[in-house]
Amino acid sequence: MYRLICRDGSAKRGELYTVHGTIQSPVFMNVGTAAAIKGAVSTMDLQDIKTQVVLSNTYHLHVRPGDQVIKKLGGLHKFMVWDKPILTDSGGYQVFSLAGLRKIKEEGVYFNSHVDGRKIFMGPEESMQIQSNLASTIAMALDECPPHPAEREYMQNSVDRTTRWLKRCMDEMTKLNSLPDTINKKQMLFGINQGGTYEDIRIEHAKRISDMELEGYAIGGLAVGESHAQMYHILEETVPHLPLDKPTYLMGVGTPENILECVDRGVDFFDCVYPARNGRHGNAYTNHGKLNLLNARYELDGRPIEEECRCPVCKHYSRAYIRHLFKAKEMLGLRLLVTHNLYFYNKMMEEIRTAIEQHRYKEYKKVKLEGFAQGEA
Amino acid sequence: MYRLICRDGSAKRGELYTVHGTIQSPVFMNVGTAAAIKGAVSTMDLQDIKTQVVLSNTYHLHVRPGDQVIKKLGGLHKFMVWDKPILTDSGGYQVFSLAGLRKIKEEGVYFNSHVDGRKIFMGPEESMQIQSNLASTIAMALDECPPHPAEREYMQNSVDRTTRWLKRCMDEMTKLNSLPDTINKKQMLFGINQGGTYEDIRIEHAKRISDMELEGYAIGGLAVGESHAQMYHILEETVPHLPLDKPTYLMGVGTPENILECVDRGVDFFDCVYPARNGRHGNAYTNHGKLNLLNARYELDGRPIEEECRCPVCKHYSRAYIRHLFKAKEMLGLRLLVTHNLYFYNKMMEEIRTAIEQHRYKEYKKVKLEGFAQGEA
Repeated sequence: MYRLICRDGSAKRGELYTVHGTIQSPVFMNVGTAAAIKGAVSTMDLQDIKTQVVLSNTYHLHVRPGDQVIKKLGGLHKFMVWDKPILTDSGGYQVFSLAGLRKIKEEGVYFNSHVDGRKIFMGPEESMQIQSNLASTIAMALDECPPHPAEREYMQNSVDRTTRWLKRCMDEMTKLNSLPDTINKKQMLFGINQGGTYEDIRIEHAKRISDMELEGYAIGGLAVGESHAQMYHILEETVPHLPLDKPTYLMGVGTPENILECVDRGVDFFDCVYPARNGRHGNAYTNHGKLNLLNARYELDGRPIEEECRCPVCKHYSRAYIRHLFKAKEMLGLRLLVTHNLYFYNKMMEEIRTAIEQHRYKEYKKVKLEGFAQGEA
Repeated sequence: MYRLICRDGSAKRGELYTVHGTIQSPVFMNVGTAAAIKGAVSTMDLQDIKTQVVLSNTYHLHVRPGDQVIKKLGGLHKFMVWDKPILTDSGGYQVFSLAGLRKIKEEGVYFNSHVDGRKIFMGPEESMQIQSNLASTIAMALDECPPHPAEREYMQNSVDRTTRWLKRCMDEMTKLNSLPDTINKKQMLFGINQGGTYEDIRIEHAKRISDMELEGYAIGGLAVGESHAQMYHILEETVPHLPLDKPTYLMGVGTPENILECVDRGVDFFDCVYPARNGRHGNAYTNHGKLNLLNARYELDGRPIEEECRCPVCKHYSRAYIRHLFKAKEMLGLRLLVTHNLYFYNKMMEEIRTAIEQHRYKEYKKVKLEGFAQGEA
């Protein structure tokens, strides 16, 4: 159950009550694709960096170690030792982007595993069954992620099928949640809005799925090649047609700047691989933009990544040390930067929540964006 | 200053007072080659796994980031954020094993950096200067690590030169410790016994360096290809000729079995890359031998690596999860296994100390070795 605590303009401040605890929104979900955060960050570490939700990938866990294995081991929470909420995606996106997609049909998708090439079928029912086995807190409905750009006719047909799949997901989830050996019988289902950059298709789809009374709504198929301006425009058109009293989740977005803009357009759930991926490439987020610690200027820099940062990394380690770890190819360097970057995102979300509560979100956003643009001191 | 607390047979229980705190011996020093433990283990983690001493490699730090850089940043302790003792090796071993060795002369060794190929010279004075810049707690004297096997004449000449180098190291260290801008003015120096498998050369060398009143004595040039029986034999011949009232350090050794046997022969300082290297290959140490967690039998094994283990990994994570992390190539797997393995070694040393204090070391060793041989349940 979601409660809208307050609004500041279009920005939403809410909380989602789940069987694994309450999520305060706006929230950034920390990506742990294969039941682990990249960069050797442990679930124990996540306790110290304000992580509220871990996002894991259904497709990855289905092919390895297998959702049946995870079910036998007591579900994803027990497996990865994380007792707070976990969201699993539907597997659809990875099928379209990573696996060898063979065919999309009304019943579902046929594809080859990227691990061993074995043929796999996944329809809405299978996606729900896998996510039920994983026993995540929130399951995502199976959707088609249409290519960008896509012809209008293709898009309309795709969105219609996504709607039909959503109904099948709902029916299957209801069934699964009532089975005796289901681990999480209160698994929630979020639906996904599609429609590419066709405003009218987006809006009509948003209305249709809003009527279906899901526990949350995601906007999919953005950040796939369109401009930021287009993305913001689509949000401005679409979000008003999604229910205010449910989470509004923009999938796979984005930079700190993107998040600030999208919160301002009513989005309150986010996930993105950027903080981990950037960390692995030596980039550290700060309130004055990104630093690349591989840069020679940090060789003798004994300061933390960011002086004011209260993360476990900035409390102890210097830019010079982290730079050295990267140069010496020591894995610890990745871990330290990923930890800092996730903290940076999680901390920013906390600030965003406070700013909305205090009805000064526009001002907060402005100051924050100016800081990012300013570059490092 | 070293204090011999008690003996049990030849086994020594002592403590070494240093400017960075007291080391309880027998001790296993945890290898952090490039100012970092392999496997993304942080110095914060080391606080939780009973680590007393970190060993870092002079050669590696000299070539990257450079000992001058570390000095400017306040020394190795500040650089890697570790306020307990650090031992640095002399750099000699890496020059002989890793770098492109060009020539050994009376003045020192000429070699090429393995990082950028640049020509480097290191004599006893240079090794001391580098280690003084690093400001480790304990510096090792520069020695030659002769090949195994080596002709008797080669060995005798090499050992004689190592003795001359030791004298030069002592003089240089005395000088460096009195310079105003030296970071650690109480840096200790350990000498190194050499002689390969020639008992008489070992013994004569042990006597000569014992007279030189160093703060500790290492036995080098073992575990380089000779059998375990030969190694134990050399220890039995040599250790009695090293001072009882100083640390006795066997460099680069070894397996838990080796350590148990060598403690029984009077050794009380150890270091070895095995716990980290084995961890990185999926092997976990337990009191019932090593487990290879890549084995399919652990796929559904929800137990910790070892039920009785109190390490931060066994408190939380399962064999099945760690196995999955390795299979999915998630760095977290390495980190968890290296952490467990270092704890296993450090914990065993703690048990060893207690057993010596209670004069039941032989019995302790017997039971421990039987457990290792027994294999897992």
